[in-house]
Amino acid sequence: MIGVDFKHLASATSIAVLFATAGLADPLPSWTDTEAKSRIIAFVDKVTDPVSAQYVTPSDRVAVFDNDGTLWAEQPVYFQLYFAIDQLRKLADEDPSVLKTDILRSAVAGDLKAVAQGGTEALFEILDASHSGMTVQAFQSAVREWVKTADHPDTGMGYDDMTYQPMTELLRYLRDEDFKTYIVSGGGIHFMRVFAEEAYGIPPEQVLGTYTNVEYQVIEGKPVLVKTPGIAFVDDKEGKPINIERTLGKRPIFAAGNSDGDFAMLEWTTAGDGPRFGMLVHHTDAQREYAYDRDGHIGRLNDGLDLGPDLGWLIVDMAKDWSRIYTGAK
Amino acid sequence: MIGVDFKHLASATSIAVLFATAGLADPLPSWTDTEAKSRIIAFVDKVTDPVSAQYVTPSDRVAVFDNDGTLWAEQPVYFQLYFAIDQLRKLADEDPSVLKTDILRSAVAGDLKAVAQGGTEALFEILDASHSGMTVQAFQSAVREWVKTADHPDTGMGYDDMTYQPMTELLRYLRDEDFKTYIVSGGGIHFMRVFAEEAYGIPPEQVLGTYTNVEYQVIEGKPVLVKTPGIAFVDDKEGKPINIERTLGKRPIFAAGNSDGDFAMLEWTTAGDGPRFGMLVHHTDAQREYAYDRDGHIGRLNDGLDLGPDLGWLIVDMAKDWSRIYTGAK
Repeated sequence: MIGVDFKHLASATSIAVLFATAGLADPLPSWTDTEAKSRIIAFVDKVTDPVSAQYVTPSDRVAVFDNDGTLWAEQPVYFQLYFAIDQLRKLADEDPSVLKTDILRSAVAGDLKAVAQGGTEALFEILDASHSGMTVQAFQSAVREWVKTADHPDTGMGYDDMTYQPMTELLRYLRDEDFKTYIVSGGGIHFMRVFAEEAYGIPPEQVLGTYTNVEYQVIEGKPVLVKTPGIAFVDDKEGKPINIERTLGKRPIFAAGNSDGDFAMLEWTTAGDGPRFGMLVHHTDAQREYAYDRDGHIGRLNDGLDLGPDLGWLIVDMAKDWSRIYTGAK
Repeated sequence: MIGVDFKHLASATSIAVLFATAGLADPLPSWTDTEAKSRIIAFVDKVTDPVSAQYVTPSDRVAVFDNDGTLWAEQPVYFQLYFAIDQLRKLADEDPSVLKTDILRSAVAGDLKAVAQGGTEALFEILDASHSGMTVQAFQSAVREWVKTADHPDTGMGYDDMTYQPMTELLRYLRDEDFKTYIVSGGGIHFMRVFAEEAYGIPPEQVLGTYTNVEYQVIEGKPVLVKTPGIAFVDDKEGKPINIERTLGKRPIFAAGNSDGDFAMLEWTTAGDGPRFGMLVHHTDAQREYAYDRDGHIGRLNDGLDLGPDLGWLIVDMAKDWSRIYTGAK
């Protein structure tokens, strides 16, 4: 809890100066001194102040974050798809017969247009071929190796360098104020858990997401969990609040996303009693990152822009509200 | 961490005397001074001792517990079935047309034999009729009211008084030694979460179990989660390690159960590298509790008795190893 009531400060006041005056380090140095930053701090301030009427006990300080487009970039396609294709190439090098269909052959040839034209079905075909038939452990070793070595086609940066610096600051700030931070993402749990702890400080048990089928098998006396074809649960749209309730048994008080896939999660979070915070990262920065919203082939954002402000949600303008984008050096 | 190496003490030594000598309170006062108690303490001692070769870092100190028959009693039928029938009676009082089938009519008439003869199908029919068609919140209010007021047919005790005192001590002891304790049960998450925090000190997000289907609905502008017919996931047998891996993303180092429904969970837990602990509660006390194992219509225990000891699992003999059974006064 920061002992200054930011709620009543004009948004034009320099927050950095205020923190410095109070002898405190600015908790969000990569956020510019705009209303976005002051609203976040005002919220945290009031729910952590024991004398505030809106005080929230630490065990209820649950904050949920989408991953793709919210904690790291998601363009030109979801990073997990790049991994899937690289993984498919590796598998095909060992055994070309894995490339059973035109979609899979297009994917390893790098023809993302053909993949996109195949829609969800094509995506699931690629996921099945690259994400099943091995133990969870073997799969995660492959992800670990990939994250360490692969580069993004547009920026040339490592994928984990394309996490958003302002969001990692926000995660840390919330945890410093006794929030428990969770990822709730359409991305795969076995994929995200490999880097979430190092990249975001979020341990495996706080990473919720989409998951494939898994089978328990005892192979040569050794019990293992094997990823098998098919998706058991898609953690998107209405699936997000369902998964949060199922896993945590409680409603968060803070939710952050960037697309209409996050709408239900923010809607459910902010409809609860007491103080709530909903926030959408709006991709407005074509120069430093990407600019897309209503027509995005990924991360489409319509309902959030239309209805979010009236629901009290903060719409973060990346271009204006963030002084720095990536955690990586570029 | 307790600074005494219990591993090398003869099991006949009085642990209570040892703790008293060391100026420490006995962490397991309702466990008699048998090998069971000394093995548990020796394990905790070695994984929490920083100079031990078998030291385990706190973030990996994950302990999982079955609920029915492990943390509380499960005879003559699962307590959740008593709740389901009471709930069905309440619903039928308001609207008799909910009793659509012979099984449901038998259930509210208290004819458990007819229910048992109907097998799993009958059970699911009763669960659907009593556990769906309401919000999660409304369902949990009903459970809360029931736990407060209902009495067990054999003992006349409240159901939450029939939790096992030695096991609540074990849970607390493990947490005091920086373990994170989880329930992983065939019981329903929405049912167990109502009392797990008070009864066991286990918060909702650490309660894993079977779950029904849930739908996200917006009713009169208010988003709610509604329990709908059908079981989405059965958290039993191989489902237990699958659910643990999916939810926690890591393998526990300590697992406790009481039936072959827990076999895979213990098998997976204890097959990991490094120090592991598997434990089965063997119901041997017909006088103070119930005595059943290989032929139990509930909590059947065959594989665990046949294979457990060779796998290094502790078989707890309730009659011998526990000086007290229930947390309740009786």
